[in-house]
Amino acid sequence: MDPTDAQEACFEAGIKFGSLYHQFAGTPVSPASAASLERAIEEATENQPYCESATVDVREDRLAADIEHGYTELTGEYMDVELVIDHPGGEVVASMAMEDGYPLMRLNSIRE
Amino acid sequence: MDPTDAQEACFEAGIKFGSLYHQFAGTPVSPASAASLERAIEEATENQPYCESATVDVREDRLAADIEHGYTELTGEYMDVELVIDHPGGEVVASMAMEDGYPLMRLNSIRE
Amino acid sequence: MDPTDAQEACFEAGIKFGSLYHQFAGTPVSPASAASLERAIEEATENQPYCESATVDVREDRLAADIEHGYTELTGEYMDVELVIDHPGGEVVASMAMEDGYPLMRLNSIRE
Amino acid sequence: MDPTDAQEACFEAGIKFGSLYHQFAGTPVSPASAASLERAIEEATENQPYCESATVDVREDRLAADIEHGYTELTGEYMDVELVIDHPGGEVVASMAMEDGYPLMRLNSIRE
Repeated sequence: MDPTDAQEACFEAGIKFGSLYHQFAGTPVSPASAASLERAIEEATENQPYCESATVDVREDRLAADIEHGYTELTGEYMDVELVIDHPGGEVVASMAMEDGYPLMRLNSIRE
Repeated sequence: MDPTDAQEACFEAGIKFGSLYHQFAGTPVSPASAASLERAIEEATENQPYCESATVDVREDRLAADIEHGYTELTGEYMDVELVIDHPGGEVVASMAMEDGYPLMRLNSIRE
Repeated sequence: MDPTDAQEACFEAGIKFGSLYHQFAGTPVSPASAASLERAIEEATENQPYCESATVDVREDRLAADIEHGYTELTGEYMDVELVIDHPGGEVVASMAMEDGYPLMRLNSIRE
Repeated sequence: MDPTDAQEACFEAGIKFGSLYHQFAGTPVSPASAASLERAIEEATENQPYCESATVDVREDRLAADIEHGYTELTGEYMDVELVIDHPGGEVVASMAMEDGYPLMRLNSIRE
């Protein structure tokens, strides 16, 4: 069957998550550079179609606890994200956070 | 509202597309290395949850026409992709191809 | 032969250039988000060993001239970079800019 | 001072290492997909100027020991690399392997 508009909106939310994760994972990051990286990820993601807002928290507490060589590489472990997608099919809220040692991307709600 | 299982399936399809695009865009590629890159993108993507199959065509014809320095960087212009997602919410088929000078990711069908 | 300290310094300069290019190429960018991306690339790169400073100019003029869908993907065409490496083998200055349609990374000087 | 040809050769070796690491780190990888990823990294890297050969070993033993969700993301921990650069300034051999919990890139030798 053809997808519904609401399903299209959820597809778009997924694209944004996959994009931001694989674009920025691996970036050298430290507690001192966390803020500039958060802002760059947010603004880059908000450039993309239907992305109403991106809120990124690079976890300075976890970075500070883990770092041995002055910096580490960004992974899902160090990043909480919430996205709001505004699409003709509805408003979608989705988020990413660690769950069971895995950076889980989750579709939270859709308002058609 | 809570998302439906079918909407979750579409979200997963989007994640895979965003991931593969932003992971591999920028890779140095030539007609001679197109085949190994196709295979690596397919197998990497099929590792991810719910990804039944990934079919990637790195367009050697377009590469050959555009290359001036022996290789170029992979972009959506040089890549056609079809993904099949097998999720409790349904089987989703999605694809990426150039449209209007833009690598459009499209949700083709869902069978709930 | 074993490499000299000055050759090690040049190797380190090359690592930083390859890293920043392939980490950030592909990022969705617009004139409005150019500034946050510049800052994130600079601070991420300065986290790395021996990197004294990174100066990044994301070319808003070229972005504005080329953009058709509100944003584009970052490539070497839109980015001028200068790096200063401070290493026991010497101070190395290196830069990246477009030359002949190709983003050329160049070793400018070394002061041993 | 202007860099010597041998220093340029070392700079080029560094570029290749930074490029391959930040291009491919983050790729979803499993023991079963290790071989296709090795080959793609090798051939992509060999496309670049002055790269005579790239030899990549994605460590299936370490992947198998660590994986909990069927796959993981490629990091330096799972990858040994040797590069040979053939440049007018000399033949450079460089390698990457884990050392002290950090993926160390090392300039092994130069034959001017």
